[in-house]
This record gives sequence, C-alpha cells and structure tokens, in this order.
Amino acid sequence: MSNFISENFLLDSKPAETLYHDYAADQPIIDYHCHLPPGDLAADRKFENLTDIWLRGDHYKWRAMRTLGVDEKFITGEADDKTKFDKWAEAVPYTLRNPLHHWSHLELKRYFGIDKLLTPDTADEIYSRCTEMLQEPEFSARSLVTRMNVEVICTTDDPTDSLEHHRAIKQDGFEVKVLPGFRPDAAYNFSDPDTYNNYLQKLESASGISITNYDDLLEALFNRMDFFENHGCRLSDHGIKTLQGEPVGKKEIEKYFDTVRSGGDLSLRQQQSLRYAILLELGRRYAQKGWVQQFHLGALRNANSRMMEQLGPDSGFDSIGDYSQAESMVQFFDTLDKTKELPKTIIYNLNPADNAIFATMTGNYNDGTVRGKMQYGSAWWFLDQKDGMEEQMNVLSNMGILSCFVGMLTDSRSFLSYPRHEYFRRTLCNLVGADLANGQMPDDIEWTGKIISDICYQNANSYFEF
Amino acid sequence: MSNFISENFLLDSKPAETLYHDYAADQPIIDYHCHLPPGDLAADRKFENLTDIWLRGDHYKWRAMRTLGVDEKFITGEADDKTKFDKWAEAVPYTLRNPLHHWSHLELKRYFGIDKLLTPDTADEIYSRCTEMLQEPEFSARSLVTRMNVEVICTTDDPTDSLEHHRAIKQDGFEVKVLPGFRPDAAYNFSDPDTYNNYLQKLESASGISITNYDDLLEALFNRMDFFENHGCRLSDHGIKTLQGEPVGKKEIEKYFDTVRSGGDLSLRQQQSLRYAILLELGRRYAQKGWVQQFHLGALRNANSRMMEQLGPDSGFDSIGDYSQAESMVQFFDTLDKTKELPKTIIYNLNPADNAIFATMTGNYNDGTVRGKMQYGSAWWFLDQKDGMEEQMNVLSNMGILSCFVGMLTDSRSFLSYPRHEYFRRTLCNLVGADLANGQMPDDIEWTGKIISDICYQNANSYFEF
Amino acid sequence: MSNFISENFLLDSKPAETLYHDYAADQPIIDYHCHLPPGDLAADRKFENLTDIWLRGDHYKWRAMRTLGVDEKFITGEADDKTKFDKWAEAVPYTLRNPLHHWSHLELKRYFGIDKLLTPDTADEIYSRCTEMLQEPEFSARSLVTRMNVEVICTTDDPTDSLEHHRAIKQDGFEVKVLPGFRPDAAYNFSDPDTYNNYLQKLESASGISITNYDDLLEALFNRMDFFENHGCRLSDHGIKTLQGEPVGKKEIEKYFDTVRSGGDLSLRQQQSLRYAILLELGRRYAQKGWVQQFHLGALRNANSRMMEQLGPDSGFDSIGDYSQAESMVQFFDTLDKTKELPKTIIYNLNPADNAIFATMTGNYNDGTVRGKMQYGSAWWFLDQKDGMEEQMNVLSNMGILSCFVGMLTDSRSFLSYPRHEYFRRTLCNLVGADLANGQMPDDIEWTGKIISDICYQNANSYFEF
Repeated sequence: MSNFISENFLLDSKPAETLYHDYAADQPIIDYHCHLPPGDLAADRKFENLTDIWLRGDHYKWRAMRTLGVDEKFITGEADDKTKFDKWAEAVPYTLRNPLHHWSHLELKRYFGIDKLLTPDTADEIYSRCTEMLQEPEFSARSLVTRMNVEVICTTDDPTDSLEHHRAIKQDGFEVKVLPGFRPDAAYNFSDPDTYNNYLQKLESASGISITNYDDLLEALFNRMDFFENHGCRLSDHGIKTLQGEPVGKKEIEKYFDTVRSGGDLSLRQQQSLRYAILLELGRRYAQKGWVQQFHLGALRNANSRMMEQLGPDSGFDSIGDYSQAESMVQFFDTLDKTKELPKTIIYNLNPADNAIFATMTGNYNDGTVRGKMQYGSAWWFLDQKDGMEEQMNVLSNMGILSCFVGMLTDSRSFLSYPRHEYFRRTLCNLVGADLANGQMPDDIEWTGKIISDICYQNANSYFEF
Repeated sequence: MSNFISENFLLDSKPAETLYHDYAADQPIIDYHCHLPPGDLAADRKFENLTDIWLRGDHYKWRAMRTLGVDEKFITGEADDKTKFDKWAEAVPYTLRNPLHHWSHLELKRYFGIDKLLTPDTADEIYSRCTEMLQEPEFSARSLVTRMNVEVICTTDDPTDSLEHHRAIKQDGFEVKVLPGFRPDAAYNFSDPDTYNNYLQKLESASGISITNYDDLLEALFNRMDFFENHGCRLSDHGIKTLQGEPVGKKEIEKYFDTVRSGGDLSLRQQQSLRYAILLELGRRYAQKGWVQQFHLGALRNANSRMMEQLGPDSGFDSIGDYSQAESMVQFFDTLDKTKELPKTIIYNLNPADNAIFATMTGNYNDGTVRGKMQYGSAWWFLDQKDGMEEQMNVLSNMGILSCFVGMLTDSRSFLSYPRHEYFRRTLCNLVGADLANGQMPDDIEWTGKIISDICYQNANSYFEF
Repeated sequence: MSNFISENFLLDSKPAETLYHDYAADQPIIDYHCHLPPGDLAADRKFENLTDIWLRGDHYKWRAMRTLGVDEKFITGEADDKTKFDKWAEAVPYTLRNPLHHWSHLELKRYFGIDKLLTPDTADEIYSRCTEMLQEPEFSARSLVTRMNVEVICTTDDPTDSLEHHRAIKQDGFEVKVLPGFRPDAAYNFSDPDTYNNYLQKLESASGISITNYDDLLEALFNRMDFFENHGCRLSDHGIKTLQGEPVGKKEIEKYFDTVRSGGDLSLRQQQSLRYAILLELGRRYAQKGWVQQFHLGALRNANSRMMEQLGPDSGFDSIGDYSQAESMVQFFDTLDKTKELPKTIIYNLNPADNAIFATMTGNYNDGTVRGKMQYGSAWWFLDQKDGMEEQMNVLSNMGILSCFVGMLTDSRSFLSYPRHEYFRRTLCNLVGADLANGQMPDDIEWTGKIISDICYQNANSYFEF
C-alpha cells in the first residue's frame, strides 16, 4: 500500500507538500461539531472488536453495503460481528472512488498501523490484529482522541440532556476539552403533537419550569442555555430543511403553541411560523451569550419509511433535498441583524447546487464587527469528500474570504474519524499549493503557510472563544 | 488528424491507456436505451448518401447550424442533400469544443475510415467517398450495428406498437438481440383530451380491450406489457418533467379518468395525480415482471412554439428545466418500496444542478436485495459529453458506488452513434486512470480493470437479465 | 512579484501562450456593458489619490474588508483617504484566492507599473507613487480608457437621462465611442407607488409626454428609446430576479397601471404581470430597432436592511438567489418569437447552478436568422472570476457554440477595470490551449486563433452593429 496512503497522499505539488508537512500536519484539532457520545468518553469505553468500533454505528458503510447487494442481516441484523466484518471486507474493494475507500484505509493506518488493503484475503488478519489492539489502553475512547492531538470537542446535545457525562469528563481532568453543543431541534418539531408534548415534559423536568404557554417554552429553553453555558457551551446547532417561516404576530404564535400544547395539529405553514419565531428568540439569546449558531440546511431525511420503521432514523436512508434557501435565509438573518442581535453564524448546505448561495449569503451580514462573523461552513455529509471539500473551498475563495475560514469538523459518531481532519488539511494544502505552483499566487510560502495554519486551527480558536 | 482522434484520444495517463486498451475497448456493447427505428433494422435499410444517414434526423446538428446563422432551408428545408451537407461542413470547424466536433470526426473515422477534418475544403471528397461506401453491404443498418460489436439493442416503443419489426429481426436470425422498450408516455399525457382519446382508440385496438374506465386502461396497458414481455422486453422508460403528483383516492382517480375519457379538461394538478396513480400501477407490474423502470426527468420540451408548428417535436427546440425533483421522487419510490413493489430503477437527470440529488436518491432504496438496484443513470442529452459524463461519474463515485454502475447507452436515433460507447469508455478510463496515476487509488491495475470492464459490459448484462 | 503577474500569468500550456500573445492580447476592447459614469468621461475627470479612484466606489473591496473585521469607519465612513487605503493594504494579503487579489495587482501593474505586492509594508510607497501619477494627464478618465485600447463603451442609463454627457463626449471628438445603454428598470418597479410616481414625473418631463394611462407609459418609453437611438444606443439592459409574470389581458394591465398611478398598491403577482407586459412591449420595439436586449437575472439585492438604510443600494450587501428561471424565460421569449418579434438577446445568470439552463435556453430561439442571435452571457458579478468564467465557457462550449460568443464586458463602475478583459482573454486562451495541448482539438493554431480573436473582438463588433 506504500504508493496509496503515502506520506504525500493527495499532495500533488511541491508547495502542497511543504504547506501540509510544515504548516498543517502538527496543528491541534478543534472538533467544534461532532456526534461523539459523551458517555463513552466519560466511561473511557473500550471496544470489543473492530466491528464494534468501526461498523456498529456507521450508516455510510451500511449504505455502501446495501448498494452492493449485501443482505441487511449482515449489516444491522443478527449476523455475528466477524461475519459482518467479512461482508464489509468483501465490499471495500468495490468502494473505489468513494470516500469510504480513503477513510477506511486512512483509519486503519493511523490508529492501528495497518498498511495493507482491506480485502477478503486480509480480513482475518486485520480483524484479529485490530481487535487485539483494541484491548490495549491506547485504544480506549479517550486515548483514541488524545492520540490525534485533539484540543477541543463539541458534542451535540439536546437541551434536556443532564450533561452529567460532560461534568464527569471534566472532573476527571481529561486533557481534552469536551463541551456540550446546544441542539434544540426537538423543541420546534411539531409534526407529531404527542411526541412534542412528551418532549416538553422532559424539558419541564430538566428546567424545572412548567410549560403552559409560549413564553414558558422560551423560558425553559433559556434556562437550559444557561445550564449549557455553565458547562462551557459556546455554540448551538440546528438541523432543518430550510429557515422558511412566515412571520406572524406574537398573538398568533401563542395560539399556535397553545394548539399543539393541547394536542392539536398545526398546518405545515403554522409549524414553520412557530419554529421561525422560536429560532429568532434563540438567535437573540445566542447573540447575548456570544455563542455561535450553526444551521445545517437542506437534508431530505428518512426517505425510506419501510426501513425507518425497521431501523429508526440515521440508518442510511437520507438524501439531498432541493429546497429554496436564499430568501428565507435573508428574512431570518436580516430580522436578527436589524436590531444588531445576529450572533456569529455558520451556515452549511447539503445540496452542492447551493454552494454559491450560501457562500455569498455570508457577505450580507459580515459587517466588520467580528472577523469572519458569518461563515460558510465546511463541506458536510455527502459533500464531505475531496471533490466536495474542494468545491466548498473554491466557492468560498471566489465569493468570500478563505483566510477567515474556521475549517474542518468531523460531524462524526465514530472515535476513528479524526483522520478526516488530516484529509481536509491535505486537500486544502493541495488546492492552495497548486495555485502556488502555477503562479496564481505570489511565491510566498511563509505567508501562505500562516493562512493554512489559521484555517487548520487558529481561526476556530479565535472564533469560538472556548 | 493523426494528433486529434489518435489511438490515445482522451487518455491522458499511462494507466488510462492500459485500462482502455486492455479492459474496455473489446467489451461488447449493450445499448439498453436508444431510439433506433426497428423498421430500418428489419429492412436492413441502405442509406442514400451521407446526408441521409448523418444529417436527416439529427437535431443536435440542426441546432448548432441554426446558432451559427444557417437558414432553415439548408437544415430541414428544401435544399438538396449535397447542399445541406456543404452547409454542415461549413459549420463543423466552428463547433470546436462542442461534443459534435468530437462525435462527428469519431463517426467519420470509425465507420468510414476518414482521417481528415471535415471542412469546406474536404466536404466534396468526404461526401462522395462516404456516399460510395454507403452503397456497400457493410453499410446497411444491420452491418453498421454488428461492426461495432453490439450485443443487445433496446429500442423505445409505444405500448400500441405491433412489434412486427422486432419479430422480423428475430425471425431473420439477426445476431444482435433487438428488444423492445416499453415507453407508455402517451398513456398519461392528458394535456389535450382529443389527442388522448385518439391514443386510447389505438390502445384499444392493440390490446383488444375496450377502455371505458380507469381499470380498463390499466388492463390494456398490462396486456401490452405481457405482449412486450413475449418479445423479450426487460425494461420501460418514462420521459416526464417530474414525478410530481398529489396522491388521491381511487374514486377521485376514476373520476379524473372519466372526465378526460369523455373529452373534458383536467387541471394540471388532476393530470399529475392521474399520471402518478398510473405510474404506481405500472411500477408494481414492472416489479412483478422483474423489469427495470427508467425515468428521464427534467427536460423542458418544445420551447419554441413557432418552430414546433413548423417542424414538430424533437427538432432541436428543447432545453433544460429547473424543476423540484427530490420530494416527489421520494413520495413515488417510497410508496412502491413500502410494499416491496419497487422494481429495479434507473433515474436520469437533465439538469446537472440535480446530479447530487439523483445520486443520493438511489441510496434511499438500495436495500441489499439486488446489486445496484436503483441506479443513477448515465449523463443524458445535453450532458452527454466529456464534462457531463465526468461530473456524473464523479458524483456517482463520491455519493454512490461507481463499481455497480450499468454504464453507457446511446439514447440515439442514428445508426452512426455507437462510437459514443467508445467515447464514454475512454472518458471513464481517463478518470479512473488519473486516480491510479496520482496515487488516489491502490496501484492495482488488474482489479481496477475488472471494475472498468464490469461498468462497460458485465454490470448491464447482469442487471437487465436479457 | 515577477513570478506572480508574469508574462504568462494564467497561461499553463504552450498553445495557451501562443493563442493569448498572438491572437488575443492586441484585440481592441468593446465594453458593451458597464457602469462607468459618463459625466467623468465628459469632464475627463482627474482623481485625487489612489483611494479616490480605487476604493471610493468599489463594494467588492468593501465587502472583503467587512468580512475581515474592518470597521465601517475605515470603509465608507469618516476616516481619511490614506487611513482607508492602509486598511485596504492590510486586508489585501488576506484576500488570497479571491479575484480581488488578482484584479488588484493586475490593476496596479497595468495602469501604474507597480510590480510589488500590496501589503502594509508597501502601502505608503504605492499610495504616494500612484497618487503622484494620478496628477498626470495619462491618468485622466479618458486617458485611462484609451491606454487600454478600448474602442466602444456602452454605459448604463435610465430612460430619463438627458445623455448630455454622451453628447459632450462625442462633440469633443473623443476617439472612443461612448454610447448610452437603455436600462428602464425603474419603469416597472412598482413595489413603492410613491417612488414609482415620482419616477413617472421625471419620465414625463424627459419625454414631454403626459402619462395618465398604460399606453402613455409605453409612448413615453418609446420616445426615450428614439432619443437614445439618436445618441447611438444599440442595446438595453434589465436587472430583475426573474422574467416571471402571469400574462393577463390588456384591460387588466391597464387597470393595474391605473391603480399604481393613483398611488395604490399592487400585489406581487399584479406587479409581475404588469412588468411582464411592459417588457414584452419593449422587446418588440427593440426588435424593430435591431437592438440587443440584455437580462441580468437572479440577484438577491439589498439583503441587509440595516446597512441599506445607512448606505443605500450597491454597497456590498447583495447575494445570489435561487429562483426558478426556465419556464418563465420560455414563456417570455416564446411569446416574442411567435410573432417574429424577438430581438437579439443576451441572458446572464447569477446563480451558477443555472448555467446549463441558460446555456441551453439560447438554443431554443436561435433560428438561423442571426449568427448567435441569443447569447449565453459572460460570467457576471460573483461569477466574474477564473472558475466562474471557465464554467460559463465550458457549459457554453458543451451546450452551445463557443465560437459565436460575444465575450467579455467589465460591468464595472471603475476606470481601472479594463484589465478584466485581459484576465478573461488569458482564461479563454488557457482553456482552449489546454484542449490543443492534450489533443482534444485538432492541432491547428491558426484556425483556433481566429476563433479566439472572434470571441475577443470580432463577434461583438458584428453582433451589436455599433
């Protein structure tokens, strides 16, 4: 494999090599948005075997296997862990050109020192070697993180979360800052009133606030924001299709809330208006606290209801939507900006056709008060691969200011995903290095290197103020 | 021209050359979707001259000439064949960078051995040489096909077609399988009730079923499906803007049908609902038969009503639409999948901004039952050129599994279009070869070559089960 | 900087170099769409200092500075010119990969002979050298234009404009043709009835026609068209989101106009219908006059109402919209074409996701009467950079006929923007040269060079018939 994941993997020019090795590789990692389970870090979880840590929760791999005709039994079903791994090993050689092929070999190499391609021929050896290593202390959840030079991790947590694991991690003196991220999506998902009211019950109990009307809801959410802030939280995240929502008066909003609170159904338009109102109030509070708000827009989730029933959400049956985004973003951000209550904001698009819309949107609200105040977020989910990253960075470069970019995050549920930062950094250096090599940039490796290291680490460090 | 359409045309790296020459070039062709007239194959048609075979029906060339300011008289009008050819020869040097420039010279070279550029200077010689050759037996419709190593051709046929030509071709023992393709678009085009009822009359007579209500319509279509199946049909095709359609109850559907059947107009919404219902029923039947259903989505046809009146459809006055596609696809495919009645499906988009939407859509319904069950179809129509193919294959690689891809089809009305498979294969090998050359893929030419030959031939062979 | 903006800047192959230096560089410039103030040309304005000519009106630079965290005081505020320049000099090294970085150094080099990078270290020297030069006659508004080999300039003017400056320029015998461009956007912007009626008052006084009804409005506009024509006008321009508009009867249109004329509000749909009707009438008149109509579609303007109030429009708070474009374009252009009243037309898209839609739209109305009658316009605004230009030209090549392309325009408010033509030409030659270098084009530099020079100059010269 020496010619594959080599020292200069993805680095196609001399300047790219220099930029990566001298300015990028050694930067610490700030993983400001991920889905790592804090409980695993609190318990410093050990993993049973390679399937346990690598396949158990990875719907990217599941999806690839299904496309390749592997029966669900061997993916999420009753087959044993080794058999599942064998099925994955059969699939891997057929994933050529999919990011999984790169990720997988990079992960085997960086964490386990495996320098072989995963194929049916090498499956037994790799499974047993890795499983053996997983028994060692350097392969506990915490060690996996510290070995990758991670400085900060922001998890993704519901407002009702007790944050007990975050406290435990801190009390243990774990050297990596593990901070909560405020993700209140459940608080404005009104599609099923029963589910919603069950959620409010949890929110009441977490906040100690009885929620009988709209203002109570806000109070309870603000209460949890304070709680999160006390645990070091510096940011929120929102996963919705669009920011669409017709602004209506406070009275209307209260009525909508009363309806759903008493178990009634809201029309789609009412749901959007109510969500819109809540998001505005949250935004204002984020601004007060100096938090960063993040919006992940444009996913079309749970497109397969048969498999949804069988496996639940986040099982690999989501895709990219083609929603209108521009005018609703303007309406939302402009409303906050008008009263100078727009917090620092990162917007992520899932539909690559929206790249230019998101990149130029940020310029509308960058008013000189904060460097890179509104950010065009890193390539996300289906776009989190070399082409997607390059396109995001090219559009950002052309229509915004690349040098302010807060860079990469894993967005991952897996403890083996940190090489994605390496992958991003190589891609970034390769892109910029090519410009240096062909004279599209001044021949100043030092200055360019400074900008590279800013994007890898320093920009995020300044922006989030952890 | 030796430096232009050379041995290594489009192959920019050593691995690309090896992949193409050793693994792709000799694969047979399965042309699973085209518009070749079966009558010409049944009659083993001979062509009068180069204009007859090359310009008579090619609206790509017409469109280019019109843009270049050529009068319609010399395109579809009363000018004689040689004059029309001269006008085309004048145009060709101005088509640089358009796929026509590549296609045209590739076709002249592969079929006629012409190694000169077509220009006004060479027009006379090329016209007379080719016209002379066209009188030879190797230039009959059948010979043009067999000389290109074609194994299977699927034509595109209306349900009312007698398939007499397909029978004749088979009875003659023609070595190429020429199979019908079921294209029922006329059965759900309700925009003009008169046209529709005339069509139903033809359908009645073809099926022997009197169509007085909605169930009769389905019965008649199913009857024709059986008939097509008896002639070796393995697939259907549908050309519509979107899969949009509000699901309504059976009673409503029947009422809509009754309205149009008795000459009444349906609202656009009603038309869509009725079409949607029919497509669901067809889909269920395709699943039973193990057919592949194809959807060509997103064309904006007949945009020039003045020329439409003058020349009819398919004359070069169509373009790309910007329709919402994602949610209506989910609604349609999910409905079929819920009851495990989703057939193998290929979705083709015309708007390249939808590439990622279509590529990720397939993953929602790939459930492990069939390898590559839902396919993201090859670059189509305006996208059927090097950039378009590369983008389709890159998105497919990044967001799906390239190795399952059933590959290229001509979609052509011309007997001279088979070099498009060569063009596709060169482009594919060039793309993958570049990854091999720069270390983004393991240095394993044999395995990569296997995947190449799968995409060129074996995947389609397994998928369609002809 | 010798390795940066070098002789072969952006030219990555030998054929690219030959094409640029032998066929492109010396072509005169036809700047058929820009926003240069004709008053400055009439007065042959001198500029106080480098800030005056370079930063005063450039919202691209403002936007970059705001993103980099520069306070508005130093951008459009009360800071003195030298301080503002220093802030810009601080920003420039951080604009790497943004077109501003290229434009800025190209402009410093071509106009002022500055061969240094602009940084805080060189800011003083560059400011004083350039400011000194600006006092010389070769740096007057007219000289800046003539030094760049400009042959024609089309400005952008409201129908009510007196065109006094255009007359003065002509009377002075200025060697560059400076012609007005008809931009009637204010005549169909009904969002604020007061503003609209104030505008009509100006239009009445300019045309000498009292506007009491819809026909009067048209009469007044036609009157001004005649006036513009007498001043050499050959084209119009329209900046709107989309061509959307429900066609309604003449009576309805008259009623809508009466409503707004008497200060009443129109619904959005009514506004669009009225605008649509006016645009059709204008189109018919353009066709009679042989003018070219231009449509700049898809901008989302004035997205920041707080800054809009502070600074007014065109201050850098606009972005890219995601509007449906295809069907409304077809409705509009087809209506004009039906009666053979479609003028020569150029359509420009701001959303790059619409590239293919716009490129293929032109083919619907290219009917052979005029070479390149409907044009897919050059990359515009946010797309006016190397990637954006390349994408526009690649899509145009693949889906249209590049050789007919009327090429570049500056669209600029600045007298220092003419190197954008150089930038475009280098990019064009680089793109085409790469095809020559790798055998995707016949090895005929002379023919290819002819096409290059056509795109740089001759096509526009023939098309607009100045």
